[in-house]
Amino acid sequence: MRLSRRMANVHRSYIREILKVTQRPEIISFAGGLPSPDHFPVAGFSDAAAAVLAEEGPQALQYSTTEGFLPLRQFISDRYKTKWGLDIPADEILVTTGSQQGLDLVAKVLLDEGDTVLIERPGYLGAIQCFSLFGVNFSTVDLTPSGPDLEQLALRLEEGARLFYAVPTFQNPASTAWDLTTRQETARLLAANHAVFLEDNPYGELRFMGQDMPPVRAYLDDERAVLMGSFSKIASPGLRLGWVAAKPGLMHHLVTAKQASDLHTSTLTQRILARFLADNDLDAHIEVIRREYKARRDCMVDAIREHFPAEVQASSPEGGMFLWCELPADVSSVAVFDKAIACNVAFVPGKPFYVDGTDNGFRLNFSNSTPERIAEGIKRLGRCLKEALVPGR
Amino acid sequence: MRLSRRMANVHRSYIREILKVTQRPEIISFAGGLPSPDHFPVAGFSDAAAAVLAEEGPQALQYSTTEGFLPLRQFISDRYKTKWGLDIPADEILVTTGSQQGLDLVAKVLLDEGDTVLIERPGYLGAIQCFSLFGVNFSTVDLTPSGPDLEQLALRLEEGARLFYAVPTFQNPASTAWDLTTRQETARLLAANHAVFLEDNPYGELRFMGQDMPPVRAYLDDERAVLMGSFSKIASPGLRLGWVAAKPGLMHHLVTAKQASDLHTSTLTQRILARFLADNDLDAHIEVIRREYKARRDCMVDAIREHFPAEVQASSPEGGMFLWCELPADVSSVAVFDKAIACNVAFVPGKPFYVDGTDNGFRLNFSNSTPERIAEGIKRLGRCLKEALVPGR
Repeated sequence: MRLSRRMANVHRSYIREILKVTQRPEIISFAGGLPSPDHFPVAGFSDAAAAVLAEEGPQALQYSTTEGFLPLRQFISDRYKTKWGLDIPADEILVTTGSQQGLDLVAKVLLDEGDTVLIERPGYLGAIQCFSLFGVNFSTVDLTPSGPDLEQLALRLEEGARLFYAVPTFQNPASTAWDLTTRQETARLLAANHAVFLEDNPYGELRFMGQDMPPVRAYLDDERAVLMGSFSKIASPGLRLGWVAAKPGLMHHLVTAKQASDLHTSTLTQRILARFLADNDLDAHIEVIRREYKARRDCMVDAIREHFPAEVQASSPEGGMFLWCELPADVSSVAVFDKAIACNVAFVPGKPFYVDGTDNGFRLNFSNSTPERIAEGIKRLGRCLKEALVPGR
Repeated sequence: MRLSRRMANVHRSYIREILKVTQRPEIISFAGGLPSPDHFPVAGFSDAAAAVLAEEGPQALQYSTTEGFLPLRQFISDRYKTKWGLDIPADEILVTTGSQQGLDLVAKVLLDEGDTVLIERPGYLGAIQCFSLFGVNFSTVDLTPSGPDLEQLALRLEEGARLFYAVPTFQNPASTAWDLTTRQETARLLAANHAVFLEDNPYGELRFMGQDMPPVRAYLDDERAVLMGSFSKIASPGLRLGWVAAKPGLMHHLVTAKQASDLHTSTLTQRILARFLADNDLDAHIEVIRREYKARRDCMVDAIREHFPAEVQASSPEGGMFLWCELPADVSSVAVFDKAIACNVAFVPGKPFYVDGTDNGFRLNFSNSTPERIAEGIKRLGRCLKEALVPGR
């Protein structure tokens, strides 16, 4: 069957494909990108669902507005104000079916075939997949430990990128958090150019050490600054609730694109989440997650120090759900992946996070394994890496 | 701000815009396309939500597969088998965020800018909106009381349409149900041409008189036959749960497009619906809706006979949620709409259901008004139509 041209540019998510292999019970998998289900607030959601269906059942099961449930949008607006002093009114917030849908809607409204999208290197593979469907060209800016290389960024923006997509805090996969200077300097560079800045922030609240950092949007209050967020990592990913914050001119078109794409996001999940947020202390819940994730992260960092060969560089993130590792430039993470599976341990090879075929990085998830499993898994992986790097040792 | 070229082709949903006017409390509105919230199975969903969160809470709040929750897909598969003897295995069913998303995904996978999409005339405006975003050209086939004009259909298919989109049973807005011969003949014409047939069926189960009709897919078991469905009209629209059924070759690409668009549909709503369907008798529930909608439809048909001027032709549908009315060719439904609002009664002008500017039809919804409101509203509208057609009478 003849497919559209855009399908030639896109591949199935590599991660979702390898998850089929890594889910065998004998395998300790650091491959997924899942939050810990042991720390979902199940009781809180159970109470919220019961209350919503008892008190507002017919409305909760009916069609609703494309923009989203107002109390939920107001909660998001208030949180921006309280946390960062940002004035983002509720009518500049569109509820989306996860923040992944925000990528699709922004692309629909802004991107033509052949436009250039600038991304971090490495970059979030879900964004690469989404933008690929719009037939864009990619340019990249290298990530340093403090954020994007600013000289490169200036050059790339001058070359005329239509849109710069970035995850400034605990990026997937590199776990980098941009420092304050980089955020301010990026805002300055963006203000001097024409690119739209699409700022994605699913992990920002999962900081367990160091100092919280405001979104770049705090320094770029401009119609070209588009900020996305998500409840997936701080409440529940299974609800599929995220948002896009944009100024009214762009918001008008995002709403039109959303109407055409799925009419609106589930009324029921929006009302359940709004009720949950009204009746529970989200910050207290986030504190529980932070504590647990820190313990898991510490365990992984320690085990890596003990078991990995010195040739492997591993990050020590201050938050998020991932560690990023780099092998020597001539070693393929895909090849190491096959060996790791044979040793009953799994990670995500770095290749899908690059648009240029680079393949010497890999991603480890620590949020979804107990410290015991982490210690054992990293030990196995260390053995396997030593074999791979110095065969026969 | 520079928008993508595709945004020049698309408008906000006219209906969603006029709903703001028609929601004033003094107005009796037949404009919306809402099911009756008085007949949502709130207690059943409440029990299902409680059971899901108590017994499978962590899984229900976690990420899940792009394809959808297997027991839900199996339910859909089994129902096709039981009702129509159709063999559509669960792995040829993709759960979508309402069937509107099915349109977006099929368009992403199959349509290039400049392709021709064939639609019924009048046609579903949500499909016109969605396909417009892909920069396609439209061609149309006139709807007769028994379905599309078959001579026209043959011609249009020969002209090389890439895709034929249709709602064969109780179409929105025309409320037409294709007869059996038309279904079989359409399948024959499609088999002899290259167009994909995208068959949408949100209203098919809402038949309250006459004989049930199988989907066209029953006569066209071909990889180009794509069938969509929805739980919006038979269970709840607020869950946003629909599906696309397609053969494996196409399904592979639809899943990829879905990954890029929103990763997956809400795990929680899928599990709640699956539990609801396992613990309740869906057919008994549909029977309740059918009985109530028939009473409302009868009331509207009777009131129209009593109050509308003879120049207005109104349909007498055997199911669905709408009546379709046609004014004399030189009368604008948009102009009549303004007069109707002044008389505190509302409908949807027909213009957005046409791609050629035709404007002498209008749509009346009967599912979401009580018989009392219907009787009073149609009386008001009759008065207003008489004024509009014979000014000064």
